Amino acid sequence: VKERERGGAYAAAGVDIDEQERGLGQIKTLVRSTFDRQVLSDLGSFGGLFRPDLTGYVEPVLVSSADGVGTKLRVAQMAGDYSTVGVDLVNHCVNDILVQGARPLFFLDYVGAGKLEAERLVQLVEGLVVACRENGCALLGGETAEMPGFYRVGDYELVGFIVGVVDRPRLLDGSRIEPGDLLLGLPSSGLHTNGYSLARRVLFERRGLTVEDAWEEGGTIGEILLRPHRSYLRALEGLLGHAGLHGLAHITGGGLTDNLPRILPPGLRAEVDLGSWRVPLLFRRIAEWGGVGEAEMLRVFIQGVGMVMVIGPSDADAFVRHLAGHGLEATVVGVIQAGGSGVNYLGSALGGLA
Amino acid sequence: VKERERGGAYAAAGVDIDEQERGLGQIKTLVRSTFDRQVLSDLGSFGGLFRPDLTGYVEPVLVSSADGVGTKLRVAQMAGDYSTVGVDLVNHCVNDILVQGARPLFFLDYVGAGKLEAERLVQLVEGLVVACRENGCALLGGETAEMPGFYRVGDYELVGFIVGVVDRPRLLDGSRIEPGDLLLGLPSSGLHTNGYSLARRVLFERRGLTVEDAWEEGGTIGEILLRPHRSYLRALEGLLGHAGLHGLAHITGGGLTDNLPRILPPGLRAEVDLGSWRVPLLFRRIAEWGGVGEAEMLRVFIQGVGMVMVIGPSDADAFVRHLAGHGLEATVVGVIQAGGSGVNYLGSALGGLA
Repeated sequence: VKERERGGAYAAAGVDIDEQERGLGQIKTLVRSTFDRQVLSDLGSFGGLFRPDLTGYVEPVLVSSADGVGTKLRVAQMAGDYSTVGVDLVNHCVNDILVQGARPLFFLDYVGAGKLEAERLVQLVEGLVVACRENGCALLGGETAEMPGFYRVGDYELVGFIVGVVDRPRLLDGSRIEPGDLLLGLPSSGLHTNGYSLARRVLFERRGLTVEDAWEEGGTIGEILLRPHRSYLRALEGLLGHAGLHGLAHITGGGLTDNLPRILPPGLRAEVDLGSWRVPLLFRRIAEWGGVGEAEMLRVFIQGVGMVMVIGPSDADAFVRHLAGHGLEATVVGVIQAGGSGVNYLGSALGGLA
Repeated sequence: VKERERGGAYAAAGVDIDEQERGLGQIKTLVRSTFDRQVLSDLGSFGGLFRPDLTGYVEPVLVSSADGVGTKLRVAQMAGDYSTVGVDLVNHCVNDILVQGARPLFFLDYVGAGKLEAERLVQLVEGLVVACRENGCALLGGETAEMPGFYRVGDYELVGFIVGVVDRPRLLDGSRIEPGDLLLGLPSSGLHTNGYSLARRVLFERRGLTVEDAWEEGGTIGEILLRPHRSYLRALEGLLGHAGLHGLAHITGGGLTDNLPRILPPGLRAEVDLGSWRVPLLFRRIAEWGGVGEAEMLRVFIQGVGMVMVIGPSDADAFVRHLAGHGLEATVVGVIQAGGSGVNYLGSALGGLA
């Protein structure tokens, strides 16, 4: 978050000066709270400076990923609540590099808007900061762009970029996955950041609900849709380097169907038992109300599984206990088989719905 | 550029399958052409893997920056030409870390669109790839998001992130700048990526021009407005570590007025002689046709100066000769003075216009 860039954008926005300075002051304090001694630059320099502490690394490899929040932003706009999408973005990026065994070093954000409002911007940055702190990652820089006529007033685009590090001997690339390995599914907190176009169509257009309407399990539709994408870093970091951990797949857009194959070596397939975990109610209601078939559900939505660990079968109990200690109820959802490719589904999760 | 992410977005776009596969194939080939042996991952993995070759570095420091192209994108859209904005983005980011003495390692992009068109996406990526190759930087990853209803059909948002490295003893942070140092201005190629909202208002709304209209120096208005942001890496990399180079300022949004002070130590000011360089005609016409005062011009536009070097006075001739060898005609535009802060302007560049 370059102070001047933020300042420039603010000034251009014609935000009231007091509000602007209050907002800038808040943002500076927030962002600095993510810094540790690895950060050498203060706010306002052209680029952020980061000297990674690589003590003990044999062959450090940088791992990097870029992502956006997608149309979940539209729900934030409908609910008038931008406090959670920053958390979504950081946690999504953290998981994307975690699956290769990396821990995060630093994060940068980009906010695009039709008109920058100080309060909204503080909310967005606050979410980024909270998640960066939780994941031990510095919010090293950022850019705020006001582009009237490109974005509608009230719309905010949010893009993130993460850099982490993994020691090459501990790099997870799927090459250790073998037949007989188990798939351990880790529960998501909700939809995470996937399938919001279809979810909105079904819930708001087809079913006629609003973000203020009550959700049958408690809270509102807006609240359940805005639950932040979960970071699996704290639960999994103690298992990185464990010989029994053969692979990790972050389940995002494309669901289990598209994301599991990304880590499978040639000649192996994943067999997933759809009856092995309870798909959360929100997904089942979307399928029911939208008349969405199971194959489409499994490609558009994560169906309650945010991360899949591929593990040696003898370590399953130990891993499940470890994860329980981090509040995650993990379930064996399938197995690796020789032959074929991609994902084979057994049974159905939706059979008992009607 | 994660192959699957691109593929997913393509599929969602409902792009014709043949066109889609042709586009994806082209993009994969293009992106791979930026890889060297420091890149360990192939396309399709969750995060990009990069093992920097840091032979000879005493204390490597990572330098990172995020940026967008801003409303120059609107001109690309008007001209139906997205081949140059990718170059803009990479070169802008390269300059942003170059001013701290860093050379680029890798780059990631984000493309947001209302509807992804294969041809446009290839054009965008082609620009990124050309500039990454010219700057010796890997296009390590990327994300493509189709967000209908958020972006208009035909609109493309383009965001970039760069990571580079500098050896700490060679870090440029402005601390070596002292009174008597000279400011050496390096010519821009045009507006670079700054001031497009005002430029469009003056040229298109006030003056009634279109991108197809002829520009008085040759070519069209669209062509001169879309000239890519210049990278100063190749011209300056041979000077990094030179004892006479005390500071570098990338002149971007905010112009000389806001960007020079970013590197000045407390108690020093920059005195800039506005008669010392010839402001290119495009800037002068915008001032004339728009009735834009000089102070505003100097804050909104870069006025033909894309980079300022702060140098010891005895090295000026050698630096000017070195830059001439790279095709850059550098000019002494000012001097560092003790006392005060910010930029003092002497004379006027616009005096002789009428």
